[in-house]
Amino acid sequence: MTYCLAITLNDGIVFAADTRTNAGVDYVTAYSKLHVFSPAEDRLFVVLSAGNLATTQDVLHRVTRDLKADDGRESLRSVRYPFEAADYLGRVSVLAQSKHAEALSRSHISGETTLIIGGQIRGEPHGLFLVYPQGNYISASPETPYLQIGESKYGKPMLDRIIDPALSLNDAARLCLVSLEATVRSNITVGPPFQLAIYPRDSFALSRHVTIKENSSFYMAVRSAWQEGLKQAFNKLPPFEWETEGDKVTKIGDGQS
Amino acid sequence: MTYCLAITLNDGIVFAADTRTNAGVDYVTAYSKLHVFSPAEDRLFVVLSAGNLATTQDVLHRVTRDLKADDGRESLRSVRYPFEAADYLGRVSVLAQSKHAEALSRSHISGETTLIIGGQIRGEPHGLFLVYPQGNYISASPETPYLQIGESKYGKPMLDRIIDPALSLNDAARLCLVSLEATVRSNITVGPPFQLAIYPRDSFALSRHVTIKENSSFYMAVRSAWQEGLKQAFNKLPPFEWETEGDKVTKIGDGQS
Repeated sequence: MTYCLAITLNDGIVFAADTRTNAGVDYVTAYSKLHVFSPAEDRLFVVLSAGNLATTQDVLHRVTRDLKADDGRESLRSVRYPFEAADYLGRVSVLAQSKHAEALSRSHISGETTLIIGGQIRGEPHGLFLVYPQGNYISASPETPYLQIGESKYGKPMLDRIIDPALSLNDAARLCLVSLEATVRSNITVGPPFQLAIYPRDSFALSRHVTIKENSSFYMAVRSAWQEGLKQAFNKLPPFEWETEGDKVTKIGDGQS
Repeated sequence: MTYCLAITLNDGIVFAADTRTNAGVDYVTAYSKLHVFSPAEDRLFVVLSAGNLATTQDVLHRVTRDLKADDGRESLRSVRYPFEAADYLGRVSVLAQSKHAEALSRSHISGETTLIIGGQIRGEPHGLFLVYPQGNYISASPETPYLQIGESKYGKPMLDRIIDPALSLNDAARLCLVSLEATVRSNITVGPPFQLAIYPRDSFALSRHVTIKENSSFYMAVRSAWQEGLKQAFNKLPPFEWETEGDKVTKIGDGQS
């Protein structure tokens, strides 16, 4: 499994992904699920992927081949609007899936892949899209400024509570990390290291593209600060009406004043 | 959908459930999913249910009929150990499901139900079990002192972080509420009012059995305290190495010192 998410903000877009892939519990490996395409000075795209690894790699190879071709074919360089990039990626994805669909189906294996593509083309606002395995797509919006693929439920509640398009890119990146951390903690098919990419609006380049390792002092600090913060939040919950002040004695952690 | 959970603690067991049921998005109703059986002075059981409503009601009717029968048949009164109660409930559930299985299958409807049963019989420790649709069951344990059925992913991370068998019954009940609240916020098929039951060990009676309504001042206080606590936790996350103190300007909420 996988967990990838991206948040579109007034200031740009933040992308995040775990790196764990597994074909059964006895074949667990790490692969990048965050792919950057910077085919010209006037545009930048980031693609996140969740699903069949072979299909995903085939999609990426085809996207790269289209960029290298000089026969005028459609590619991430030729598209004029961000939605056309999503549309193009959907068609590439359907083509890649169809190649082995029959053989995979006979083996009861899903060849599907779900993709997120975000970025900007000069003259257009930055955009963020989720491309379904069927090739159709939806875009993020001011009301729902984030998109998730893969194992998305564990890390969703905190997004719903905290996301705001006015959030800074760094704060949104931190939010992605705690959303990933919640998922890792509850589901072993999602795991670090995490990849994080920050795209500031109108820059046509990533300001940050980092890998955050499990044992890095930063990640350990995020994890323990979040854990401590949640315990404090829990200890500050109001008492039931049947609890007098004296009754509420059991506290967890030591963050309670 | 549904979300029910129960936590077994040193001091007893806490049970919680939402009340929303739906057959499609245009038939949404409220039903209790928390059922108390107190068939004799030496025992008490609580059953939580998630799944097909007709099957669940049939299971409950059968369990009640078995208790009323005086022909020596097996029932929640006759069982000697808590695991036998889970075993019995599993058999009743399989029987109830089998009645309409063929007709339901023709309509592509699942008649399955998943149950949680917890309680105590005098002379035995309190016990908590999850009964699968197939009739088999697992018990909670000191390592995994909680069980969830239904839409369980959204509310799981906070359980994994905070649960401790030494938690007080009231704190565990509060934890159930925030786990339910996280689920409600991210998934419209789970909804208030919530039902909460607290069983103190060796009491053979519930100390509390309450319905918590969405617009109650207590629930609104829990929700806003949790929301504020999470914002504070978020604002206390450490900066990325590329952020100087001066750069980290965007804050959400106003709880940051």
